[in-house]
Amino acid sequence: SLIEFVESFRPFDLADCLEKLDKSEQLQLIGQLPPNLSAEILEYLEPELQYRIFANLEEPITSQVLNGMSSDVVADMLLSLHRYQAVKLLGHLPEEYRSKVLTLMTFPEQSAGSLATVDYIAARSSWTLDETLQHIRKIGHEAEITSYVYVTSNKGALIGVVSLKEIILSDPKTKVSDIVTEDVISVPALMKQEEAAELLSRYDLVALPVVDAQSRLIGVITVDDLIDVIHEEATEDIQKLGGSQPLTDTYFKTSVFQLYKKRIIWLLVLFVAEAYTGTVLRHYEVTLSEVIALSFFIPLLIGTGGNTGTQTVSTLVRALAVGEVQFRDILKVVRKEVTTGLMTGASISLIAYVRALFLGVEAKVGFVVAVTAMTVVLWASFVAAVLPLILHKLKADPAVISGPFITTLVDGTGLIIYFTVAKLVLHL
Amino acid sequence: SLIEFVESFRPFDLADCLEKLDKSEQLQLIGQLPPNLSAEILEYLEPELQYRIFANLEEPITSQVLNGMSSDVVADMLLSLHRYQAVKLLGHLPEEYRSKVLTLMTFPEQSAGSLATVDYIAARSSWTLDETLQHIRKIGHEAEITSYVYVTSNKGALIGVVSLKEIILSDPKTKVSDIVTEDVISVPALMKQEEAAELLSRYDLVALPVVDAQSRLIGVITVDDLIDVIHEEATEDIQKLGGSQPLTDTYFKTSVFQLYKKRIIWLLVLFVAEAYTGTVLRHYEVTLSEVIALSFFIPLLIGTGGNTGTQTVSTLVRALAVGEVQFRDILKVVRKEVTTGLMTGASISLIAYVRALFLGVEAKVGFVVAVTAMTVVLWASFVAAVLPLILHKLKADPAVISGPFITTLVDGTGLIIYFTVAKLVLHL
Ligand SMILES: [Mg+2]
Ligand SMILES: [Mg+2]
Ligand SMILES: [Mg+2]
Ligand SMILES: [Mg+2]
Ligand SMILES: [Mg+2]
Ligand SMILES: [Mg+2]
Ligand SMILES: [Mg+2]
Ligand SMILES: [Mg+2]
Ligand SMILES: [Mg+2]
Ligand SMILES: [Mg+2]
Ligand SMILES: [Mg+2]
Ligand SMILES: [Mg+2]
Ligand SMILES: [Mg+2]
Repeated sequence: SLIEFVESFRPFDLADCLEKLDKSEQLQLIGQLPPNLSAEILEYLEPELQYRIFANLEEPITSQVLNGMSSDVVADMLLSLHRYQAVKLLGHLPEEYRSKVLTLMTFPEQSAGSLATVDYIAARSSWTLDETLQHIRKIGHEAEITSYVYVTSNKGALIGVVSLKEIILSDPKTKVSDIVTEDVISVPALMKQEEAAELLSRYDLVALPVVDAQSRLIGVITVDDLIDVIHEEATEDIQKLGGSQPLTDTYFKTSVFQLYKKRIIWLLVLFVAEAYTGTVLRHYEVTLSEVIALSFFIPLLIGTGGNTGTQTVSTLVRALAVGEVQFRDILKVVRKEVTTGLMTGASISLIAYVRALFLGVEAKVGFVVAVTAMTVVLWASFVAAVLPLILHKLKADPAVISGPFITTLVDGTGLIIYFTVAKLVLHL
Repeated sequence: SLIEFVESFRPFDLADCLEKLDKSEQLQLIGQLPPNLSAEILEYLEPELQYRIFANLEEPITSQVLNGMSSDVVADMLLSLHRYQAVKLLGHLPEEYRSKVLTLMTFPEQSAGSLATVDYIAARSSWTLDETLQHIRKIGHEAEITSYVYVTSNKGALIGVVSLKEIILSDPKTKVSDIVTEDVISVPALMKQEEAAELLSRYDLVALPVVDAQSRLIGVITVDDLIDVIHEEATEDIQKLGGSQPLTDTYFKTSVFQLYKKRIIWLLVLFVAEAYTGTVLRHYEVTLSEVIALSFFIPLLIGTGGNTGTQTVSTLVRALAVGEVQFRDILKVVRKEVTTGLMTGASISLIAYVRALFLGVEAKVGFVVAVTAMTVVLWASFVAAVLPLILHKLKADPAVISGPFITTLVDGTGLIIYFTVAKLVLHL
């Protein structure tokens, strides 16, 4: 039958298709599929669409589907609804579950708590493994995480963790307390999501329990949601390094006006900063009109400085983001970047001299160009090495030092270097 | 005791400390810890250090530690050793396991197969769940993945998957064939690792079975290794977008000479391309010397064009990498970027005019600057929108269109726009 055919697809792909159907078809499909599959499909939809479907679904199905969904997704949906609508949907949840979901809803966006699900399995240290297995058989169908069972005290404090594997491999009469791993990695609910992702990735975990200030277990973050965080954080850094404020949505969901707002701020800041080059050039107006050939090399020299700076900045901002580099490494980093700058500068300087002669300018001007190329590359290497580390030290995001930022900085200062060298060498 | 104290730390952190000890201390520690813990610590070390320890460890311990390590890590280590050393270590593995590890070693770097581990559990469809549980109890201690049991035919073909949860929740007398999920997501061994990571992330999986051309199960990739791939791929893209070839190692493991090699190639290519700006400027030498004020705005105008292009390129390259944008969206993308460019261009154009007047140039020159600002921003938006999508279509890496690349492109073409506008408006 048609339903069977639909069931043979994965929830993610079905969600993709559902988005393209019209409203009545969406409702029909969700209403006719098994509630658990509908719940899984709904998890992949945007909150607005999730709610539009719930608002039109029949009462008993609403309950089934809503209760079948992951609690982290339910919390996100409820947070994006009008209070009145949220209360109405919350009415479909059993009391204990509802209060847990309400707790999840209290954590700020981008915090570890905001990613947690309450659909985990908890056990007591005093239980035997046999009792624990019975408990798993009772509530396992509804749980999202079953590979780990979290051991809590009667006050709800997180005591430790037992893997389902250990439970299976040990004697059923063993007590949970005998095999519990007490030294479990957990995170406070208010920890930043990227730090949680960092921990999970460093220790190769698949789930991360979240606790409140009293060490009570609030929920568990699953690896798939932290993978999304890792993707989001990389996207954010790439957009920042590109000289734009990070988008809050995907590309096509971002309107032209939002795109404009995210970009114009930095464009204007950089424009104002770059405007300084006009002042520098006017200052050297006489020099320029005496040797008009000097102007031929302006874009080339400052462009190369910008390229060098962009290379260094992007490498270092990423190294800081993944924890390969820290502020205390600053001397090592500067030495490495300046040495590399010496080598790239020397290469560029040589070819710059050749280029100048080919353009038919005097050898002296060629010499000025070569010396400037060397100096600008070195200067760009130095500032691009130092600035991201200082920002990191100041607890600001080093990704603010974008390619366009360093390019702009090097443009103005590079011109000063150029004309200073020119005046010295050409005795102007 | 000291050993107990050491055992209270996590393998990752112990590996970190071990790297800082001297050779004899490293050996002593690994030799004295329980072999399973030593194996886990070794998994986090570099192949060279792994081997140095193995080469000096006593025979029985070598065997225990080597067999306790993840097969994917063992394969990586053996691949980085001299053939003679690899053969010697392979002698410590039981025959069947050895041949599986040898298979893993045949897959090229960055392929799905190169990430797979053979330490998974396989079952037959004809088994009952009780028999399967017995099997798990027998070999589960050595397995790396136990949350899923892979069902294979007698020829080794992957038939499906059963989760440990399903096994626990179902009647022990049920046959595996009754609860097996046949529609399992698997990847060919030669699939690129980033595509495998994409699949895992899209379908929220924690493990990904790898099959050969005959659909035989070769191994399973675990989520932690694909998280590493996701990090690596983002790092690679950030470095490429910064106008450098991606580093093959971490920042501090990359020597200055390697850093030089990765950077100088693009620096030289871009230098040669940028050298074109010299030709353009010489061509307009007369215009320039007539209105020297025009030169004041060269860095500002081409800089702004480069900034716009960098913003657009970084956003789109990332959107292509995460699959938010495809080539067939090209018209939508161009429309969106050009409209945004119209808005940012208009804002910049206005402030450029004001800036020109403040610098004390003629109103006519200010008008030239304003028109150029608008045109250059639009032009940069257009090429930065089109180029990454075309590269993606040609199956080349769109990240090659870096910030420095688009900046260089816009520098030369931006100058032509500038002087064309100047000649038209100023009747030169
Ligand atoms: Mg949330
Ligand atoms: Mg890891
Ligand atoms: Mg979730
Ligand atoms: Mg998810
Ligand atoms: Mg963030
Ligand atoms: Mg960040
Ligand atoms: Mg530039
Ligand atoms: Mg490998
Ligand atoms: Mg996902
Ligand atoms: Mg592994
Ligand atoms: Mg790993
Ligand atoms: Mg790659
Ligand atoms: Mg890539």
